Formats: sequence, C-alpha cells, structure tokens
Amino acid sequence: MSDTDQFIEEAFKGNILRFELKKILFEGQSEFQKVQVVDTKHHGRMLLNDGCVMLSERDEFIYHEMMAHIPLFLHPNPKRVLIIGGGDGGTAREVLRHKSVDMCDMVEIDSMVVEASKAHLPVTADGMKESPRFRLFIEDGVKFVNRTSDKYDVVLVDSTDPVGPAQPLFGEGFYRDIYRILTEDGIVVSQAESPFYASEMQVKLAQIISSVFPICRFLNFSNLTYPGGLWSFSFGSKKYHPTNDFHSDRRLQSKMKTKYYNAEIHKSCFSLPEFQMEKLRVYLRDQ
Amino acid sequence: MSDTDQFIEEAFKGNILRFELKKILFEGQSEFQKVQVVDTKHHGRMLLNDGCVMLSERDEFIYHEMMAHIPLFLHPNPKRVLIIGGGDGGTAREVLRHKSVDMCDMVEIDSMVVEASKAHLPVTADGMKESPRFRLFIEDGVKFVNRTSDKYDVVLVDSTDPVGPAQPLFGEGFYRDIYRILTEDGIVVSQAESPFYASEMQVKLAQIISSVFPICRFLNFSNLTYPGGLWSFSFGSKKYHPTNDFHSDRRLQSKMKTKYYNAEIHKSCFSLPEFQMEKLRVYLRDQ
Repeated sequence: MSDTDQFIEEAFKGNILRFELKKILFEGQSEFQKVQVVDTKHHGRMLLNDGCVMLSERDEFIYHEMMAHIPLFLHPNPKRVLIIGGGDGGTAREVLRHKSVDMCDMVEIDSMVVEASKAHLPVTADGMKESPRFRLFIEDGVKFVNRTSDKYDVVLVDSTDPVGPAQPLFGEGFYRDIYRILTEDGIVVSQAESPFYASEMQVKLAQIISSVFPICRFLNFSNLTYPGGLWSFSFGSKKYHPTNDFHSDRRLQSKMKTKYYNAEIHKSCFSLPEFQMEKLRVYLRDQ
Repeated sequence: MSDTDQFIEEAFKGNILRFELKKILFEGQSEFQKVQVVDTKHHGRMLLNDGCVMLSERDEFIYHEMMAHIPLFLHPNPKRVLIIGGGDGGTAREVLRHKSVDMCDMVEIDSMVVEASKAHLPVTADGMKESPRFRLFIEDGVKFVNRTSDKYDVVLVDSTDPVGPAQPLFGEGFYRDIYRILTEDGIVVSQAESPFYASEMQVKLAQIISSVFPICRFLNFSNLTYPGGLWSFSFGSKKYHPTNDFHSDRRLQSKMKTKYYNAEIHKSCFSLPEFQMEKLRVYLRDQ
C-alpha cells in the first residue's frame, strides 16, 4: 500500500506499478502474512499479500488460464490435479472446467487468504465452492507433498514470490516429492517470476526442474499487475512434450471459452526472448 | 513527469508506471511537443515526448529489434527501407545491421527529438550517425509518403501514440500512400499500441490495413516501459506471409546477435491472446 493511501503500489527493482485505490475491503494479519483485499478504480478488486499484488479481477484470467490449461489440454486424460497455494481459488476454477478432472486437491498454507477471497473476490473464489470434485487442505504444501501417498496427473505450484512462506517451494526436495507423487506421465507447472527482473531465480528453478524431470521448459505470458508485464511459468514433464504432444483438436472438442489461452498461444508461449533463452538454454530439456 | 519530481510517471487508463528519477538531462519545447531526456535509477536514460515515455535504455532493444527484424528477416532481399518517425534512431540502428539494406531513409517531423537523442542517448542514436546508407528528412511523414516517387521494400511506422503530431499516421490515406511506394513484395510494420488498453485503436488500424493490403496481421511483444507491458505492431504485406514465408536459415546465416528477437519469437509473436484475437479476427488476412 502506498504512503499516500490513494494508490496500490507494487515496486520491484525500480519498476513501480500504481493502481488508483477506491476502498479497502479487508485487512488482516495471519500467522504468515498481511492479507488485504481492496477495490480499485480501473482494475476491479485486488488481493495483496504483504503489500504485493497477487491478482486483480481485471486480468487474473490470464495467470489462471495459463497455469491450468497448458498442462490440462496437453495431458490426454487428466483426472487428478493438485494445486499448491492458489488460495484465491482462480486456478481451481479453471482446473474444474476440465470435465476429465474428477478430483482437484488444493493445499493452501494460509486460511485467511481463502476466507478473504471467498468473502470479497467471488468471481475468483468460485473455484473453491462446495463440490465433490474439490478438496481443500489448509496445510504446508511442502509437508503435504512429502507425506501424501496419493498420485496426481498434474501438479500446479501457484505460489507467491520466493520469500516468506513460499520460500521452500523453490527447493529441490520439494520437486523430488512432486516427481514421486506424479503419475508416470505427470506434469508440473510452477509460478516462475519475471524474466526481466528475476533471471537468477529462473536459473535456479531451471536447474532444479531439469535435474528432476526429463522434460524442462519455461513458458511466458503477459499480464497487467506484475512489474514488467511479462511473466513466466516453469514446466516439468515426465513424458509429454509441451508443444509436440499438444493436440489442438482436444481443445476444440472441449468447446471451452477462454479469454487469453488458445491453441496458438499454447504453441507459442514456450518461445522465449533471446535474453531469457541465453540464461536458460543449457537447462531446457526436450526429453 | 510526476508531481513530486522524484519519478517519471506514465499513466494510461488507470495503469500507472513510475521510474525513479536521477537527473533531467534535457528539456525543450519544439513546435510539436515537449521533449525530455532524463536519467533514471534503474532503467538507464529515458526519452519522453509530452511526458509519455518513448523509450528507456534498458529495454529499447525489444521495440527496435521487433520492428526491424520481423520484416527484414522475412523479406528475402530488403534493399531500401523507409522509417516514418523513429527520431531516437533505435529503429535505424537495427535496420542498418542488415547487410542487404543499401539505403535507409528516415522521415522525422521533429528535429528536436533527433538532436536530443544524438546528444543524450548515444547508444540508441547510433543508427543516425553519418553513413552513405542513411538519409534523414526532417519532414511530415504523411506528406513525404504522398510526395515521394521512391520505392521501398519495407516501411516502418515508428510513431508515437495516435494523438498530437502522430494522429494522421493512423489514417487510411497514409496507408494507401504506403502501399503505392512499396515494391510489389513490400511490407509495412507499424506501432499499434496496447492490446489491453487500446483495442478500439487496434480495430481501426486493422480495418485500414486489411482494406489496403492482402495480408494483414498483428504481432505482440513485451516491454518494460509501456503501461501493461504487452504491446503490438500491425503487419501489412503485399506478398509474404509473416510465418509461412519466414526462413530461419536466413537469420542463422546472418549471425546477427540479438537480445529479444530470435527465430522462435518470429514465429510465435503473431499468436494473439484470445481477447485480442476476438476483436481482430475478422480483419486478419493471410492472403
């Protein structure tokens, strides 16, 4: 929150984003972080953790569509999906649009994020409504993937930045556990920060994923509320190549309406700018 | 410039970008606009016209590489290139890296932009140094394309937003003149604003280009200094399809080092997010 109380401000390495504030709807301090939901003049409601913008209602569809639909339209028959984090519900909402999915488990460490989203971000939190296909665990995601004996076709690491409670989500042990709980053709997609401002973190994540998974790639998309606009997810896969094994007819047959994701975006989002490719090339693996 | 004089601020439809100011290097009022060059803490020097950020030294390579290299690596033998606007010199710099180009003409309406860039943005203005391959015309681009009888293989419309002096650059007459001065396999690429915040303008430009050129497409790229990050260029072509007719071996043989553009980006940048595609689809033409 800015010093003037008229703006939501997000600053990252000298790139400062401001959004005009209309009203603070919720403020609370959980065991893990400060949680806020605010209304803005031009970008709908926003969720902030420790002052960092997690989402705006205006553009959250981009992040959530890209996280869910890239692996779920690639995998030929995803039945069980695990979300680590994702307490706002947006990723679960997109996952549950896939009719093949009969169970979506979500492990969020901070119940305050879930409750604040349910109360003040109904469109996003729609993914967390009562359903026999959805289970919520309020628990540390690192411990969950270490203790569970369940198997998943797709794991989505919908985490905050690698500081505070999310820090262990950027470690090798975590990804070894994910490998273990994934089925033999499983896929993991993870939030991977800004290619402009977080290249060291991307390299670290690429090192980990390429050491654990036979296929390691990164994908990019553009949104409005993260500094720099361009943002990345990492992609680890046991079997499926992200573009060669993608069949756009599956997407067509689903008749799912999307606002950012489409078959062309699926194929193109794995193309990285040269400055990013230079740093990651040595870690990217196609099999 | 912000009210506090500590920041460079760019606001567009409620999306406000701020960059920490270090020093004002140049300020002048030309016949057309206020021109400023400033130094910032994290993004190098910046050029501003009427307070709008035109470029930062940190990321100008993206805009200029994408504007020049998309058409110049697509066209099999581009010899003559015309730049409308581009007074900072960055587009000319990238154009002149193509050895096939024996003449790059640049038509900039505002000599103050050229002089300020030469004096304070040497890396960007490098494209405007004395060369038998480069000619600068201080003139209205709309009048130039109407009066000239020269022919060009590629025209690049490197303009500011469609307000002030750049407004006529978003009109049909201008594009009919460009069609006339292009060779029979000519290509035009134009600055086309934000897909998030300027969809009406994009539709207008798509209407014009599709009514004049047999091939009309849009391409996207991400930068740091325009609100929303994601930005578009329009693409009009008499003969060459932007991706089907692109041969990556030409790019390989050139051995040109780039920082954003590469062969994969060339092929993928024409894939548009669904929300943008929905509005433009009816105007996009592949032949």
